[in-house]
Amino acid sequence: FRRTRSMHGPCPVTTFGPKACVLQNPKTIMHIQDPASQRLTWNKPPKSVLVIKKIRDATLLQPFKELCIFLTETKGMVVYVEKKVLEDPAIINDECFAPVKKKFCTFREDYDDISDQIDFIICLGGDGTLLYASSLFQNSVPPVMAFHLGSLGFLTPFNFDNFQPQVTQVIEGNAALVLRSRLKVKVVKESRDNKSLIQNGIEENGLGVVNFMEREPCKITKYQVLNEVVVDRGPSSYLSNVDVFLDGHLITTVQGDGVIVSTPTGSTAYAAAAGASMIHPNVPAIMITPICPHSLSFRPIVVPAGVELKIMLSPEARNAAWVSFDGRKRQQISHGDSISITTSCYPLPSICFRDPVNDWFNSLAECLHWNVRKKQNHFSVDDEEF
Amino acid sequence: FRRTRSMHGPCPVTTFGPKACVLQNPKTIMHIQDPASQRLTWNKPPKSVLVIKKIRDATLLQPFKELCIFLTETKGMVVYVEKKVLEDPAIINDECFAPVKKKFCTFREDYDDISDQIDFIICLGGDGTLLYASSLFQNSVPPVMAFHLGSLGFLTPFNFDNFQPQVTQVIEGNAALVLRSRLKVKVVKESRDNKSLIQNGIEENGLGVVNFMEREPCKITKYQVLNEVVVDRGPSSYLSNVDVFLDGHLITTVQGDGVIVSTPTGSTAYAAAAGASMIHPNVPAIMITPICPHSLSFRPIVVPAGVELKIMLSPEARNAAWVSFDGRKRQQISHGDSISITTSCYPLPSICFRDPVNDWFNSLAECLHWNVRKKQNHFSVDDEEF
Amino acid sequence: FRRTRSMHGPCPVTTFGPKACVLQNPKTIMHIQDPASQRLTWNKPPKSVLVIKKIRDATLLQPFKELCIFLTETKGMVVYVEKKVLEDPAIINDECFAPVKKKFCTFREDYDDISDQIDFIICLGGDGTLLYASSLFQNSVPPVMAFHLGSLGFLTPFNFDNFQPQVTQVIEGNAALVLRSRLKVKVVKESRDNKSLIQNGIEENGLGVVNFMEREPCKITKYQVLNEVVVDRGPSSYLSNVDVFLDGHLITTVQGDGVIVSTPTGSTAYAAAAGASMIHPNVPAIMITPICPHSLSFRPIVVPAGVELKIMLSPEARNAAWVSFDGRKRQQISHGDSISITTSCYPLPSICFRDPVNDWFNSLAECLHWNVRKKQNHFSVDDEEF
Amino acid sequence: FRRTRSMHGPCPVTTFGPKACVLQNPKTIMHIQDPASQRLTWNKPPKSVLVIKKIRDATLLQPFKELCIFLTETKGMVVYVEKKVLEDPAIINDECFAPVKKKFCTFREDYDDISDQIDFIICLGGDGTLLYASSLFQNSVPPVMAFHLGSLGFLTPFNFDNFQPQVTQVIEGNAALVLRSRLKVKVVKESRDNKSLIQNGIEENGLGVVNFMEREPCKITKYQVLNEVVVDRGPSSYLSNVDVFLDGHLITTVQGDGVIVSTPTGSTAYAAAAGASMIHPNVPAIMITPICPHSLSFRPIVVPAGVELKIMLSPEARNAAWVSFDGRKRQQISHGDSISITTSCYPLPSICFRDPVNDWFNSLAECLHWNVRKKQNHFSVDDEEF
Repeated sequence: FRRTRSMHGPCPVTTFGPKACVLQNPKTIMHIQDPASQRLTWNKPPKSVLVIKKIRDATLLQPFKELCIFLTETKGMVVYVEKKVLEDPAIINDECFAPVKKKFCTFREDYDDISDQIDFIICLGGDGTLLYASSLFQNSVPPVMAFHLGSLGFLTPFNFDNFQPQVTQVIEGNAALVLRSRLKVKVVKESRDNKSLIQNGIEENGLGVVNFMEREPCKITKYQVLNEVVVDRGPSSYLSNVDVFLDGHLITTVQGDGVIVSTPTGSTAYAAAAGASMIHPNVPAIMITPICPHSLSFRPIVVPAGVELKIMLSPEARNAAWVSFDGRKRQQISHGDSISITTSCYPLPSICFRDPVNDWFNSLAECLHWNVRKKQNHFSVDDEEF
Repeated sequence: FRRTRSMHGPCPVTTFGPKACVLQNPKTIMHIQDPASQRLTWNKPPKSVLVIKKIRDATLLQPFKELCIFLTETKGMVVYVEKKVLEDPAIINDECFAPVKKKFCTFREDYDDISDQIDFIICLGGDGTLLYASSLFQNSVPPVMAFHLGSLGFLTPFNFDNFQPQVTQVIEGNAALVLRSRLKVKVVKESRDNKSLIQNGIEENGLGVVNFMEREPCKITKYQVLNEVVVDRGPSSYLSNVDVFLDGHLITTVQGDGVIVSTPTGSTAYAAAAGASMIHPNVPAIMITPICPHSLSFRPIVVPAGVELKIMLSPEARNAAWVSFDGRKRQQISHGDSISITTSCYPLPSICFRDPVNDWFNSLAECLHWNVRKKQNHFSVDDEEF
Repeated sequence: FRRTRSMHGPCPVTTFGPKACVLQNPKTIMHIQDPASQRLTWNKPPKSVLVIKKIRDATLLQPFKELCIFLTETKGMVVYVEKKVLEDPAIINDECFAPVKKKFCTFREDYDDISDQIDFIICLGGDGTLLYASSLFQNSVPPVMAFHLGSLGFLTPFNFDNFQPQVTQVIEGNAALVLRSRLKVKVVKESRDNKSLIQNGIEENGLGVVNFMEREPCKITKYQVLNEVVVDRGPSSYLSNVDVFLDGHLITTVQGDGVIVSTPTGSTAYAAAAGASMIHPNVPAIMITPICPHSLSFRPIVVPAGVELKIMLSPEARNAAWVSFDGRKRQQISHGDSISITTSCYPLPSICFRDPVNDWFNSLAECLHWNVRKKQNHFSVDDEEF
Repeated sequence: FRRTRSMHGPCPVTTFGPKACVLQNPKTIMHIQDPASQRLTWNKPPKSVLVIKKIRDATLLQPFKELCIFLTETKGMVVYVEKKVLEDPAIINDECFAPVKKKFCTFREDYDDISDQIDFIICLGGDGTLLYASSLFQNSVPPVMAFHLGSLGFLTPFNFDNFQPQVTQVIEGNAALVLRSRLKVKVVKESRDNKSLIQNGIEENGLGVVNFMEREPCKITKYQVLNEVVVDRGPSSYLSNVDVFLDGHLITTVQGDGVIVSTPTGSTAYAAAAGASMIHPNVPAIMITPICPHSLSFRPIVVPAGVELKIMLSPEARNAAWVSFDGRKRQQISHGDSISITTSCYPLPSICFRDPVNDWFNSLAECLHWNVRKKQNHFSVDDEEF
């Protein structure tokens, strides 16, 4: 038997002993590109680049300017920047930067939709910039190249020191990609007051859809999430009680501070603080992590990426719960409301510094202080007689 | 975009923004049968059945006899039983059972290879019986039906109370399967004593292969593992120091009591006691769990099923380490020896009581004392429109 | 050397080798009653008894009535009950109970101070009733006898089934006590709307000086806490940043969901869910437990009962934090506010079913599903010679 | 009420409400010196000093020589050194050091008892040196001054860089002490090779009677332990099953890799790796930590220092267990053997760099990477609208 090498593992045999097998049903066969071989390809040269910068961080100003000048002047690209970023006095007052700045396209979050105008995204300054980038693209996401300035983050593999050749390489199409799966979330809120629900439609950022059946308008909002959906007790000091359903079946009630549903990417963020194991982004999975569960034998669990989860307040819950999406859009969840979660078909394509495996272990090593080859701490006189 | 439903999640889009994509390389595309739809099929009716019984457990004797009589007399099957099982005085002295017993085929572990004669396996009495079954089949494994007698185990979904119709159903081919991935392990031991390594070949149970290059014969042994490979400090009270390599790169040195490399199936066994999250058997992954690591920020990690792991003693390790495979074949590992681990293409096909998802959550609920209110689907109507 | 037996351990020797010693300073010697020998003594027979009942729990009504009738009619005691408890329709409408009810003394929480009128407290229905009892007595607490109705709780050792002889025994003074230490908490809130906050005394090293000069009123509130003080992120989805000072020194900044400062009694409550070890109530200690800390190597820590802790928002914190006391009195904490915590000299005297050690392990065994074979002493003879 | 300040907390009130109290029984009152005020006092000037050096560590040679020359020549003290330490070729061949070396008193471990000849101990090079020092003194321990050379350890507060004035200060009696409690351990091994074990009293129900009749000697060994007693599965791959008794009562059976009984000092060593909370050395307590327990709701527990623990193999255990003491003297434990553990009255007096509280938190900060004031990692654009 000849195995097909792939990050997903070999195709298992389909015969079991002399007489048993599983039938191959063409309809239920998936055709998956091996994640290890996914490389960025440009159909046409990229022209527009969105630059995302963490605000309120003075150390990022100079790199930001250098990067924008390089992209605009040297590479002839159109730079998109959020308006707010340019309102920093240090940018406004920099006269040398003014001519560059003039060429920028600017936009305002929640007002201007630029999601089909961007060929390429560059992030400066921390894992939060990728969460922000993700939130701007509710469907297909352009490739993201993320720089750290100080210490390596889980999502920011590139060091800014040597940015020019690195950006050039990527623009020329020479890069490995890791497709970071996102969660597709649908929040259904029951109508609380049947009478005057006229303007119950569009949420600021989520894609709001009004359900036009008479007298029972639910409000539905959708989100694409890169790290996690968090359901917690919010301002209450009482335990939250939430029911978790999987493919329509109640699988457990979480009693505690709350529950985190995360992607593999999110497993190294809040979920890790709540005790989860860390999952490589190429594992097709969803992680469910209880937060300070009342039951001491509860554990984080990892389920296949294709399942459909639903979270609701338990009937016996005495308080509302709160939900947030990548730490944003926090809102209350009441009895009857539901949060449906499954893997999205719109991953975030993150450009690798080396490749998906090396990048991930390098960030683990740095974030977990792994890289120190330390010696044993025992006293050695006794060793011999042992 | 129309998603393909599957437990592995939807196929991600392959275009990212207006100009980027990943090219589809036919050579690196995997064709995976959706785990949710895998059902047992018999090419011909099964005739030979291996019955595995936990020994030293008096409560299993009566069920064992009933089962064997049913299989032999009612179903006309040939029952295979390990010789040791029949040496129990309670069986030897049972005259009523003698005529049935006569029809059995018996075998001795490590002496008789029955791996191509068994159509079907029935296990009685605990998760350990499956580990034993797994060890008997180093290549293709016949379908396994596992009964618990007392409390539901992680691997034993069937209750014996009503065994007859359940066995009949399975023999008639009416059953869902969960393919439990196994690990393919290769232990390479450096020759310690160059002179007299003439008979260094066949390990009792593992498939031993002698490396016939002159003057440097390594001893190679292979194992198929259902739960986990454990490398630990053995009888030493000093920390073990083992290096973990992934696809040839040193990713970390584990300093502590040891390290567990487990399948998703094994994530609910020893790895759970060492702090791992619990992984559904249909997630294609391998879990690496440190045991009492010296570094308090170490965490269990989950990597794609297709990676190749290698474990060796660290150069600075002052003691040997010990390795075992599903708790068996324990042996010492010295400097220069290596343990290579990857996902096998020979999974263990385990017959489901209901289906892979429900079976798993039912065992979690029982084993972890989860407080699940037994209820109907809350939102079955809503499911479709998701 | 003859050891003094005590739960606190033997008095250590005070000479170290031939020439070193610690001088005995009479001023710094503590005289501690061995917790193992503390037994309830009545100076005069108890006459007034406060009965605390969990509300909204129908199963408690009948036991409550039985208990009150027994105390009033048989024992001739004066029963105190909170007014709210009697407002339950099932009590109002029970005509048989009316004559008994007439004899009750009633009070309203936060309005009537009954703290010097109660000789004895009986709790019905869960650990929460003890937290409530504790909150009513900010100084000395009368002895508390706590009944569970369903399953044994950590704080409710008595089974109601056989309540009459048990209550009689206690009233007659035949009972062991466990003094559950409480925390004495002082919250100092800076006046926000004060123009002229000149040097109002909170210094870096934490030496807080309450400043009673004109126009600078800080608001000071005090609490006695039986389980824990919780400081958390409240409704924010951002990490909280709180500084923890010990005896005036900054010992750490907790970045995460928050921090729990608990008594040993509280170590089996919320702190356990956050990962703390469980501390026997007779260990003189305070436990500090981070909630989902950002730093994965953070651990719960246990410090001597006599230290003075202070918690403040970190200077770099961008959000307010929230504090609650035994899950009550939740309030916001802003920059400059401080929470001072130390062990109170007013413990809650909890009446033991058997003794402090057996009661605690029995509740652990039940609450943690420990598999204890119920057996006799293995080695009682051997104990003495140890 | 006026509280007595002390690290052990205030003396609790002894009256509870108007009528209840605990009687003060003079016989059960302990008189404990407040740990916060314990300072080293010399009855006579110290003359003999034991220097303990980690062996096989070349970086310690030069400091070791400098220290010995200083003690011998400048301070006129008699230096004791273990013979093995001087057998290092780098010391043997150093002719300059020869005259100093001549003045040393040497001894061999396990042969020469120097425990009543040492006034003062200096340790060089890691926490292990203190465990070794502890093992040499089974009764009273002279004061220990411990230097680290690289990074601060939990037990080595002094930096060697400036050793001369620091040693001088201590010799002059200017130092705070932390009395690190030790465990007094008694191992009783049943005689195995005795033909005539007629009715020697260990019955199923555990009523053991030590039998002092001829020809039935049990072997009793005693140890003083600074960190921990570890009972584990040793070379077996099967779970260990050990029964833990407290004051004669079976409190739990630990099923797993084993169990750690540690002092507060030991709580930051192996117990921390097994998940324990960290206990300040001045808390009078003993910690019991399961190692990878089979029961996922098991937790480390902390009991008062004065209890008497006993550990035995469970009757149902199928394998022997192994025990070690501070990582030393590893030995097998079989059915019938017992390990009795309680707090010793011979603590190890460890000289503080500053004081018990600051020293402890400084080592925590360094060992747990606490001291970094890091910023929040979130993206800040969204903050305002939150």
